Amino acid sequence: MIDIDLAAVSAAAERISGMAVRTPLLSSPALDAQVGGNVLLKAENLQRSGSFKFRGAYNRLAALQPSESAAGVVAWSSGNHAQGVAAAAQILGIKAAIIMPSDAPEIKVENTRGYGAEVIFYDRYTESREEISYALARKRGAVVVPSFDDPYIIAGQGTVGLEIAEQAKTAGRNIDILLCCCGGGGLIAGTSIAVRALSPATEIFSVEPASFDDTARSLVAGKRLSNPPEARSICDALLAPEPGELTFPINQTLLAAGLSVTDDEVKSAMAYAFRVLKLVVEPGGVVALAALLSGKIDVTGKTVVAVLSGGNVDPHMFSDVISSTD
Amino acid sequence: MIDIDLAAVSAAAERISGMAVRTPLLSSPALDAQVGGNVLLKAENLQRSGSFKFRGAYNRLAALQPSESAAGVVAWSSGNHAQGVAAAAQILGIKAAIIMPSDAPEIKVENTRGYGAEVIFYDRYTESREEISYALARKRGAVVVPSFDDPYIIAGQGTVGLEIAEQAKTAGRNIDILLCCCGGGGLIAGTSIAVRALSPATEIFSVEPASFDDTARSLVAGKRLSNPPEARSICDALLAPEPGELTFPINQTLLAAGLSVTDDEVKSAMAYAFRVLKLVVEPGGVVALAALLSGKIDVTGKTVVAVLSGGNVDPHMFSDVISSTD
Repeated sequence: MIDIDLAAVSAAAERISGMAVRTPLLSSPALDAQVGGNVLLKAENLQRSGSFKFRGAYNRLAALQPSESAAGVVAWSSGNHAQGVAAAAQILGIKAAIIMPSDAPEIKVENTRGYGAEVIFYDRYTESREEISYALARKRGAVVVPSFDDPYIIAGQGTVGLEIAEQAKTAGRNIDILLCCCGGGGLIAGTSIAVRALSPATEIFSVEPASFDDTARSLVAGKRLSNPPEARSICDALLAPEPGELTFPINQTLLAAGLSVTDDEVKSAMAYAFRVLKLVVEPGGVVALAALLSGKIDVTGKTVVAVLSGGNVDPHMFSDVISSTD
Repeated sequence: MIDIDLAAVSAAAERISGMAVRTPLLSSPALDAQVGGNVLLKAENLQRSGSFKFRGAYNRLAALQPSESAAGVVAWSSGNHAQGVAAAAQILGIKAAIIMPSDAPEIKVENTRGYGAEVIFYDRYTESREEISYALARKRGAVVVPSFDDPYIIAGQGTVGLEIAEQAKTAGRNIDILLCCCGGGGLIAGTSIAVRALSPATEIFSVEPASFDDTARSLVAGKRLSNPPEARSICDALLAPEPGELTFPINQTLLAAGLSVTDDEVKSAMAYAFRVLKLVVEPGGVVALAALLSGKIDVTGKTVVAVLSGGNVDPHMFSDVISSTD
């Protein structure tokens, strides 16, 4: 197992170079005026496959030995990791089977198939995606590609943080605060490793759906706590049952605290992104912006980075959100 | 009157620096694969006020003498120039009255008022916005800010081209082809001045709605031709009746030819921008991308810049387009 440190993130950055998009760090005078700080938006909705997940997936798959990749890979995912793995596998000529919940957004299922992957459905609330995945992998001799609890995945997602630090430096900005969504915690763990190594004074906050605030509660408790099984949220990308085994210790060390936002705050932020920022951001991708817009943290006079982690949202859901919110 | 040349564009760039957003030049592996070339998207939908129009408006207003600005400004616009002028006037503390067609998209009217401007409606098909504007300006002693036929406006819009040339150079790309929307022709005239000065081998094509292809026809005829009064298009930002007096001679000298796209091709491109690029682009803003996606020009193996000029679209219209197009 590789160490998960700045060197691993830098190695991932080299591996994905030319394959992943170096997404822009955007600014908006209207947003700055709205929140009273200088906001920089890391637009991972503009990433290949529509979310940051391509980074970790490509980093993992490109590091496989030929003997491993020959039998293909298996992954489970609500959708974005599915698309990331499928897109990376297609580029590298590796067969991919993806275990997806039967209620995953259509666009994520279609896109996963569009990248040539095999999609296998399971019931999110009654079946274990892990069991199904490992059983299939054993049968095929395939490698399982976890969505967050894997050093290569975490290091790959960490390239988001590496780029943020580099881009902020180029723009002459010191990052006071960084807000990043948190499902299983891979993106924020990797990002925190890179950002805190290059900008130790930056305070990093996770942002979760209010009903899936396991990381926020776990940070307070000092141990991994789960979400209740009956919890629901429109943030389909952030529905991990509990913090990861690998990701939580990293986040425990590097994060300042955890914030959370309601589904209504998420919808308002999606509508704001449409109306003012002209960006398509999915529910799980917009939580950091939602925390800013709903005043979950005072950023007056501060330089704040908010990660927009993905934009894979069904047209009918997006239409509902932009039409019903003012 | 100032000369409209690279020096004027550079002066405009200095004037708008720190006020206008330096919008990113985006790339998308999916789009590249789709059209078989390397596409760079100049995302002016991410500009302050939601379109490139802020650039020219701010350049014009910032160059006013104190005696001129005291009485305020008057402008006519279907919406984007309105918002650009209103936003610039608000920053500079100048009173702005905007003459808008009664069928302008609601979002453009609301936003214009949101920037503190006074909105006065006229009927696009029976009244003369020029007459109304000049009459009001005479009464108030105000300065009229034309939407394209003005050297400061053209030079300001030209900063789009200046940034494109600089950003492509930083990315190590030579621009073979540039596609840019054309209504009155201010954006493409200014952009062409900058791009052709810095990259003389670049071929530049205007893109218009098929029913408002006055520039394409005028380029062929060698003289300014009008659109028929009964012409209609969903591209509300590109409904100028004929090429501009100042813009056409520039475009005649610098453009390779004019392309055009149907309203259906525009809708498909808007849906593509939503689904694949995760960008909100308005009908008039997406015509260059529509020309690419509908194969109006062969870009195989070429580096192509397409300008996305704006993103101010009503939610209900956007919903219809993304829901009904596959």
